[in-house]
Amino acid sequence: MKIEYLYGRRPAAESLRAGRRVIRRLVIADSARENLTLEQLGQLAAGRGVRVDSAPRGWLDSKTRGANHQGVVLEAAPYPYVALDALLDPASLSGEPPLLLLLDLIQDVQNVGTLLRTAEAVGVHGVVLQERRAAAVTPAVVSASSGAVEHLKVAQVTNLVQAMKTLKEADVWLAGLDQGPDTTRFDQANLRGALGLVVGSEGAGLRRLVRETCDFLIELPIRGQVESLNAAVAGSVALYAAWAARGFE
Amino acid sequence: MKIEYLYGRRPAAESLRAGRRVIRRLVIADSARENLTLEQLGQLAAGRGVRVDSAPRGWLDSKTRGANHQGVVLEAAPYPYVALDALLDPASLSGEPPLLLLLDLIQDVQNVGTLLRTAEAVGVHGVVLQERRAAAVTPAVVSASSGAVEHLKVAQVTNLVQAMKTLKEADVWLAGLDQGPDTTRFDQANLRGALGLVVGSEGAGLRRLVRETCDFLIELPIRGQVESLNAAVAGSVALYAAWAARGFE
Repeated sequence: MKIEYLYGRRPAAESLRAGRRVIRRLVIADSARENLTLEQLGQLAAGRGVRVDSAPRGWLDSKTRGANHQGVVLEAAPYPYVALDALLDPASLSGEPPLLLLLDLIQDVQNVGTLLRTAEAVGVHGVVLQERRAAAVTPAVVSASSGAVEHLKVAQVTNLVQAMKTLKEADVWLAGLDQGPDTTRFDQANLRGALGLVVGSEGAGLRRLVRETCDFLIELPIRGQVESLNAAVAGSVALYAAWAARGFE
Repeated sequence: MKIEYLYGRRPAAESLRAGRRVIRRLVIADSARENLTLEQLGQLAAGRGVRVDSAPRGWLDSKTRGANHQGVVLEAAPYPYVALDALLDPASLSGEPPLLLLLDLIQDVQNVGTLLRTAEAVGVHGVVLQERRAAAVTPAVVSASSGAVEHLKVAQVTNLVQAMKTLKEADVWLAGLDQGPDTTRFDQANLRGALGLVVGSEGAGLRRLVRETCDFLIELPIRGQVESLNAAVAGSVALYAAWAARGFE
């Protein structure tokens, strides 16, 4: 089994809680100070039948390439992506119109993680990432999402535009987050129905073909001198607007 | 003159554009590839009478402690904080009720920078930071804000609670972003008048005395498993809500 080294207390706890990965063991740095979080983490692992070992801090440093692991590493199978179809699974929609998030080649790990954390918080039904030229759900993304992505359904697709067409055939409306003349201010757009929000990278925005495949484009107004927002912030504000349009149910 | 080493192309450009710091010189790495951004940056510096030098990349690495400087360092006087009173200056309010952002001990540089970038984008009239135990406007914060903080008015105060009381005396209503039983959902609160939004750190939230000094508390709803948001995201969603309440004027 291919092993990934998830790290950080909260990310490890959320992965154990979500229970979607095969877990080999939880490793605690032998120098880690005993405290409540660590004790709860051990109990959580025990409750799931996961072995808890200790190891020198240097071992954790090397497995996580010097990341801020907080004395905790979880040895786990790779992230369990789902098929695109599964994002529209009636059972998981609980009677609501689907709310999906699509990322167009966002490579910044921190931005992807932060955006996925918001997506989980507002209850999106699924996320679509392109396989190449974009950040995948790596341990760094899991940590940047504070473990939230472990609870999300994420489909990794070969071609984002093709996936968008498939979603359109399933009557999902695609709203691209963009700036420019053809956009509607986000609070004036209809975000109530079956919706896929498409967010591009901070520098490049949406690719032309992705933009053209959207049903409509929405924009966040800006009145400052610096005419752009952090990509995760822009996506998060739009996700809250979509959830608000559904009455925060 | 005490010198700070601002870094990054966009941050350097915004600092030159804002024109609020005394600038000693712009330093470009001698290995930096000539391109449009770099050429424009040179022109911007020349237009402001700022000398442009080149230096070995290692010099830039050491001055920025290995940060991602993109071949550009701006030698500048420290950040020009303003007095608390200046945030309520009628001339800068352009007839609007003041919209202020107060940060309660946020230490994460990336979060502070991202939040200040949103603050600038929505046109807040000023920001209040506490001097101790919180991130100041360092070069790292300038970069994390993509240079936006160079255009903002920021007051650094000794005691945040004291500053809150001063603002209340000036008829600014203080809304604390919080979670819990005494909160109003952010979209149901009145954010139209003279407002100071108070945001706490991600782990600890608002300090008790800060919370008690607020006039009311607002909350972002969450329906996911991971019951918290990134602090910069939460603050940004609330800032957009405050600007929306003013009709995005």
